[in-house]
Amino acid sequence: MSAIDDLVTELSRLPTIGRKSALRLTYHLLKQPAEQSYRLAQALTTLAEKVKPCTRCFNLTEQPLCAICADPRRDHSLVCVVEEASDIGAIERSSEFRGAYHVLGGRLAPIDGIGPDDLTIAALVTRVAAGGIREVILATNAKLEGEATALYIQQQLASTGVAMSRIARGLPVGGDLEYADGVTIAQSLSSRRAL
Amino acid sequence: MSAIDDLVTELSRLPTIGRKSALRLTYHLLKQPAEQSYRLAQALTTLAEKVKPCTRCFNLTEQPLCAICADPRRDHSLVCVVEEASDIGAIERSSEFRGAYHVLGGRLAPIDGIGPDDLTIAALVTRVAAGGIREVILATNAKLEGEATALYIQQQLASTGVAMSRIARGLPVGGDLEYADGVTIAQSLSSRRAL
Repeated sequence: MSAIDDLVTELSRLPTIGRKSALRLTYHLLKQPAEQSYRLAQALTTLAEKVKPCTRCFNLTEQPLCAICADPRRDHSLVCVVEEASDIGAIERSSEFRGAYHVLGGRLAPIDGIGPDDLTIAALVTRVAAGGIREVILATNAKLEGEATALYIQQQLASTGVAMSRIARGLPVGGDLEYADGVTIAQSLSSRRAL
Repeated sequence: MSAIDDLVTELSRLPTIGRKSALRLTYHLLKQPAEQSYRLAQALTTLAEKVKPCTRCFNLTEQPLCAICADPRRDHSLVCVVEEASDIGAIERSSEFRGAYHVLGGRLAPIDGIGPDDLTIAALVTRVAAGGIREVILATNAKLEGEATALYIQQQLASTGVAMSRIARGLPVGGDLEYADGVTIAQSLSSRRAL
């Protein structure tokens, strides 16, 4: 039955969805009104057609400028550099940050063949060099590759003289010392704040 | 960003996909070439347009008759009654059965408001009464509702005089007595075969 096989194949291309899950999802859709499949198909098509990177910060948007870049109430002199557009959602949910963003589109990973030219680092340097930015916060992930990416960007931006900072590492809120790894504990001790 | 939100909403209507997974899948698709989203959308549309129940057995098919009902090498005098079309795949994979099927489209579940009229039981009775069927195997699930459904069908078909059987219950192959529940062990003892 090729229509079913086709959908199973397409669904199992998605991460975390194996062949069995894809089959279960397909049979689920077959039990629903056809409108549900059409709506999902429409949402996928619209996504692929309309969503593009923001021309300034590479966040995803249906407009030339994303909602954050276009918002006059945000502090555009403060730029938070993240690896992926999805990281913006995580930071926005914390309601802590009112500046702008810059999405790298990944992190430096020589093993996977991802070098500086695959990321939006050159665009970030141009954006900072154009002026009007007082601080760049490097919010790449606290992993080896994220750290290397932050270090590389720091070197690239050094000549612009802009202030740079790196997000703090430490014990997650609600985290238990007993279950934290040694490196996190060491970071959380060395970054301790006076009270 | 409405295109992203729309897709997240549609994806999270699917079983086992929550809002977070839907968001992760959406961002994944945004990093892939647009063709992948288009192919998935196309597969969904084709599925909704073309796949219909088989006019004889209610298996899913793109033709009036499903591949099994249309296959002259199958034994059409032997009908295996299953709850869902997806159960056919499980039985076919065992390569043990060469007869035909009848898909009920669910199981009797008074709590969920599913009665005999919501299933294809009347069509099964008509099909058996029309003749040419020597045995009906009741392969509904070995759960309370599946058992009740099998019992109900048995009563409905009694007047036709057709031979009926119920799939065996027992220890799964490779199953460990130590970890089997008491009811399964009791079934597997009472259905024991002489050697």
